[in-house]
Amino acid sequence: MAIGLFDSGIGGLTVLKALKEKWPQQDFVYLADTARLPYGAKSLATIRHYVEHNVRFLQSFKLKALVIACNSASTAVLQDPITTTVPMFNVVEPGARMAAHRSTTHRIGVLGTRATVLSGAYPKQIQLHLKQAHVVQQACPIWVPLVEEGWVDDPITNLVVFRYVAAILRENVDTLVLGCTHYPVLTPAIRKACGPNIELVDSNAGLMEDLEKSVKPGQGTGRLHLMVTDDSPRTREMAQWLLGDHQITTYEAVDVIVP
Amino acid sequence: MAIGLFDSGIGGLTVLKALKEKWPQQDFVYLADTARLPYGAKSLATIRHYVEHNVRFLQSFKLKALVIACNSASTAVLQDPITTTVPMFNVVEPGARMAAHRSTTHRIGVLGTRATVLSGAYPKQIQLHLKQAHVVQQACPIWVPLVEEGWVDDPITNLVVFRYVAAILRENVDTLVLGCTHYPVLTPAIRKACGPNIELVDSNAGLMEDLEKSVKPGQGTGRLHLMVTDDSPRTREMAQWLLGDHQITTYEAVDVIVP
Repeated sequence: MAIGLFDSGIGGLTVLKALKEKWPQQDFVYLADTARLPYGAKSLATIRHYVEHNVRFLQSFKLKALVIACNSASTAVLQDPITTTVPMFNVVEPGARMAAHRSTTHRIGVLGTRATVLSGAYPKQIQLHLKQAHVVQQACPIWVPLVEEGWVDDPITNLVVFRYVAAILRENVDTLVLGCTHYPVLTPAIRKACGPNIELVDSNAGLMEDLEKSVKPGQGTGRLHLMVTDDSPRTREMAQWLLGDHQITTYEAVDVIVP
Repeated sequence: MAIGLFDSGIGGLTVLKALKEKWPQQDFVYLADTARLPYGAKSLATIRHYVEHNVRFLQSFKLKALVIACNSASTAVLQDPITTTVPMFNVVEPGARMAAHRSTTHRIGVLGTRATVLSGAYPKQIQLHLKQAHVVQQACPIWVPLVEEGWVDDPITNLVVFRYVAAILRENVDTLVLGCTHYPVLTPAIRKACGPNIELVDSNAGLMEDLEKSVKPGQGTGRLHLMVTDDSPRTREMAQWLLGDHQITTYEAVDVIVP
């Protein structure tokens, strides 16, 4: 049985890649809702509506677990839960837990999309683990479009990254949560902007703990079935670039809006 | 009877503003498909599918004309026409005609979204009016996200604009088509990058000629009914900013996907 993941686009492949590196034999099914991306600039109501479509669609596969590999979508579901037939995991809860554990000054910064920041999901989840945490947030619009365009090792991207990171560092945080699955791609630029002493946290390690506790990942033939709701040669090319050496076994354009 | 316009987002309000300035008494209905924006990074098949929804939705209003105030959507319809019950106008045909008339060296540059550039609609339409035209194109991803974020008078935006404009100026064009309804907002940055001697062309003047020829714009009470498929306070704020002194009479969140 496969693990199913979905995201508004290909950013969630950073999560899939981490899981594939830990469990190379595990089969994966990944849905990129490229016809409606990005999610992070839209309202939680619209995002939740899209999540319902994606979940309903993915549940038609034989899955042992479903991962919302998108922070904006995770916040929408945390705010207004969805019932599923398989265990569902999100990326906000493990990211918040990791940040709470790693911060020593208890001043934590969260970088995310506008939707994620406005939802307040991270401050709430971090304070479940660390009541005295002081959490500041910074919406980083433009980062997702820059990554989706492949402008990663680029002076313009460095400037955009610097602008937001400098703003949140003024709050004297010791930990920064990369609260969007696109952001780990920008780690070199973020590290350049924040210097060596800031803890950078994404949700991958925590998500793997969660998966290991409730399902048994690892068995399978290592297949990766990638589906997109809007197909373009560029999407496939960018997807392969994000996956590095990991091969896409099958690739398919799908329609998730079944009347 | 109103004139109906639609765009993937609020960029098409630059077109609406030009029409409102010419015909202040005309009533307008504007649909921003903010739940599915942007269009320009998606495939023509997906864009055309969205256009069908928007057209079907807008046809339920009493309209004298329907304007596709989005270049990416216009190219999708030029490639695969849609039948409508009211006269429908697009922004690519008038923009191409204006460019063909204004260029003296017959070397014309087109700036647009990836979808618009890949469609080849502008070169084809320009050559209908000027057979010997040499047309070069430049996709300008990131421009739409920058405008949608309101980063207009911004050094980072200037850099992104300069990168693309410098690339196309190397082709010795004397005319640049602003082939996306968001781009007129960036005119100061584009002018800075291209200098004073390049002709900048948008579709507004040509579109007004087309409308004047076939419908009689001008009568009405000057109402503007603005509809969005994804509602956020920010969309409304940005819409008002793009419209300047022109007031939004009524504002409504709508669902255009009627099963």
